[in-house]
Amino acid sequence: MNFDRTKHSHCRYNPLKDEWILVSPQRLSRPWQGRVEDDKNDNDDDSDINSNEKPTNPLCPGAIRGKNNQQNPFYEHTYVFENDYPALLADIPDPKNDQNNNNDDLFQCHAARGVCKVMCFHPNSKLTLPRMTLDHISHIVKTWIEVYRDLASQYQWVQIFENRGDVMGCSNPHPHCQIWATDFLPNEARIKHRTQKDYFLKHNGNVLLLDYIKRELNDFNKERVVIDNEHWIVVVPYWAVWPYETMLLPKRHVLRLSDLSDEEQKGLGEIMKQLLIKYDNLFNTSFPYSMGWHGAPTGDLINEDCSYWQLHALYYPPLVRSATIKKFMVGFEMLAQVQRDITPEFAAETLRNLSGEIHYKDKKN
Amino acid sequence: MNFDRTKHSHCRYNPLKDEWILVSPQRLSRPWQGRVEDDKNDNDDDSDINSNEKPTNPLCPGAIRGKNNQQNPFYEHTYVFENDYPALLADIPDPKNDQNNNNDDLFQCHAARGVCKVMCFHPNSKLTLPRMTLDHISHIVKTWIEVYRDLASQYQWVQIFENRGDVMGCSNPHPHCQIWATDFLPNEARIKHRTQKDYFLKHNGNVLLLDYIKRELNDFNKERVVIDNEHWIVVVPYWAVWPYETMLLPKRHVLRLSDLSDEEQKGLGEIMKQLLIKYDNLFNTSFPYSMGWHGAPTGDLINEDCSYWQLHALYYPPLVRSATIKKFMVGFEMLAQVQRDITPEFAAETLRNLSGEIHYKDKKN
Ligand SMILES: O=P(O)(O)O[C@H]1O[C@H](CO)[C@@H](O)[C@H](O)[C@H]1O
Ligand SMILES: O=P(O)(O)O[C@H]1O[C@H](CO)[C@@H](O)[C@H](O)[C@H]1O
Repeated sequence: MNFDRTKHSHCRYNPLKDEWILVSPQRLSRPWQGRVEDDKNDNDDDSDINSNEKPTNPLCPGAIRGKNNQQNPFYEHTYVFENDYPALLADIPDPKNDQNNNNDDLFQCHAARGVCKVMCFHPNSKLTLPRMTLDHISHIVKTWIEVYRDLASQYQWVQIFENRGDVMGCSNPHPHCQIWATDFLPNEARIKHRTQKDYFLKHNGNVLLLDYIKRELNDFNKERVVIDNEHWIVVVPYWAVWPYETMLLPKRHVLRLSDLSDEEQKGLGEIMKQLLIKYDNLFNTSFPYSMGWHGAPTGDLINEDCSYWQLHALYYPPLVRSATIKKFMVGFEMLAQVQRDITPEFAAETLRNLSGEIHYKDKKN
Repeated sequence: MNFDRTKHSHCRYNPLKDEWILVSPQRLSRPWQGRVEDDKNDNDDDSDINSNEKPTNPLCPGAIRGKNNQQNPFYEHTYVFENDYPALLADIPDPKNDQNNNNDDLFQCHAARGVCKVMCFHPNSKLTLPRMTLDHISHIVKTWIEVYRDLASQYQWVQIFENRGDVMGCSNPHPHCQIWATDFLPNEARIKHRTQKDYFLKHNGNVLLLDYIKRELNDFNKERVVIDNEHWIVVVPYWAVWPYETMLLPKRHVLRLSDLSDEEQKGLGEIMKQLLIKYDNLFNTSFPYSMGWHGAPTGDLINEDCSYWQLHALYYPPLVRSATIKKFMVGFEMLAQVQRDITPEFAAETLRNLSGEIHYKDKKN
């Protein structure tokens, strides 16, 4: 009997996070009697998609918002404001010694300073990113870079992320993302800072993610590549956790969002739109996910040599079998190790074969 | 202004997992317009709780189950069988060299051998653990130890875990847990193996978790202790991630489930019942969670000195505000760092003040 990764359970290593993923391809055939999600994401009635609603939604242009009843401007492209209920505060004192024994290995704590912003993608509450024009998407990319540049001057880490769909805890359907900036490196950043540096030192100054995409493009018949264009590539990583997880990254060595050339920004809008159309077409639903950007640290770390970093975006979508059946990361996953049923190669092939040009909703009409 | 951990965002360190948790106590007041769960967990109609249903549920005594249409025995206490759709296979070959370049830092993979078992807690599909008799719970503890002992002889890691409630991806409401054993240390085990060892070496042979509970019992007015008895303690860890997360551990130095004395097994049943009654009484619902046991590695590692390990169980429950509002670990949490709104001290106080004797359902009648 030969090992067959489409039939035999195995573990794959994620060199960016220094952890393993259990892949159980033989398990896909198990019946599902568990929870079935409402397919609320698929709001089929988009008759009024081009007419603005009354601004009852606090993210709409002109809406009244927050504790101080502020009014949003009648914005036409994107709009950024401070979260009315931020998870991070900018101005707090350090814990006193008795609460901050950093010599104490068991009870360690530090103040968490930062800022939380919300960024509306579009004035229209019903228009999701894959159905926006490329021209509009270019405004989103430009706003990301502006906000990033602004916060990066002050904070070590600027986390841009989008929760899409109520199954991902998104509390407002208006197209938007969030930006949380911190005066410390969060766990994920700290780990990737270490692993990319270690790789760089071990491999004579090679960049982990550039080596990785070079091999994905050349050594494996592009079996995990979903799409690529002149400047960007989307792969289902060899070590993907979520069923249809993807990583989006520039082909050139780029440390941060703010380093992208005009051409690269344009290519980014194009490939994002294609990827998100594919995602929506997979189960004919507005595909839920959490996505976010990772790049080299900033703030007082900006002058350190971070050349081992490569900018990348991650998409973590939970759906596995249909618009209503998601993968649960519970039990064994929480207590021992993350586990997936479909192989990354199967996911990549499936996504590759879907249209990235015509959205399923536009096909209908 | 002084630092106030009930008002100021801060990070706490988890020494077992070597990672940080963002605590944002100021955020609890934010309004929730996001997803509201069905309160399916609270099956109020338990009129027939003492009469057995027809065995249509594959976990019931006498039910027909799985690919080969096996019949379950008419079990009276617990019943253990092999998962019909296992995530791990016992008998698979090693990947060939081209698929298993362990010198290759980017594409690493190994075969994942193991076994997946299901353990029914009780013949009655409607009876959850907190409402079982202590006598019955003692059968569960004994079966855990039996299965553990059996698998521990062969596998490095034996993960006993329970997913309770459909919000935790539990695909069958019959009271049951699972046991997955692996011929390798999963991520969580590998990390705790390292952190406990490092602490032991640094602190002249002290055991991390024993030092920790000593200080929780003596240094902080028991502010994070939920309950304790002669042999066991339940705390909301200083570094808890989930809103009402708890850790349950023996007060004596115990490496593995199979090392518990008869007295300790009895005390375990008592404290588990109390904790689970408290949990159900918190939001008057059958409280969903994933729980599981962590102890020293086994299999071919059993002869290594693992005396820095301490047995403990973890409860990870997702609900935060009510029976229908859960904490979503998405966006910032997935991409940067886990985040919580209520402090561990608040959670512990709330749980402490709830009855651990009378279940809310038994109060009604
Ligand atoms: O084995 P079950 O109950 O069908 O499945 C559940 O528990 C497993 C182990 O934690 C997870 O991998 C699944 O995602 C979850 O739905
Ligand atoms: O900020 P929101 O959309 O209200 O909340 C959502 O995103 C946050 C950041 O990922 C999470 O902490 C919350 O659990 C989630 O519900």
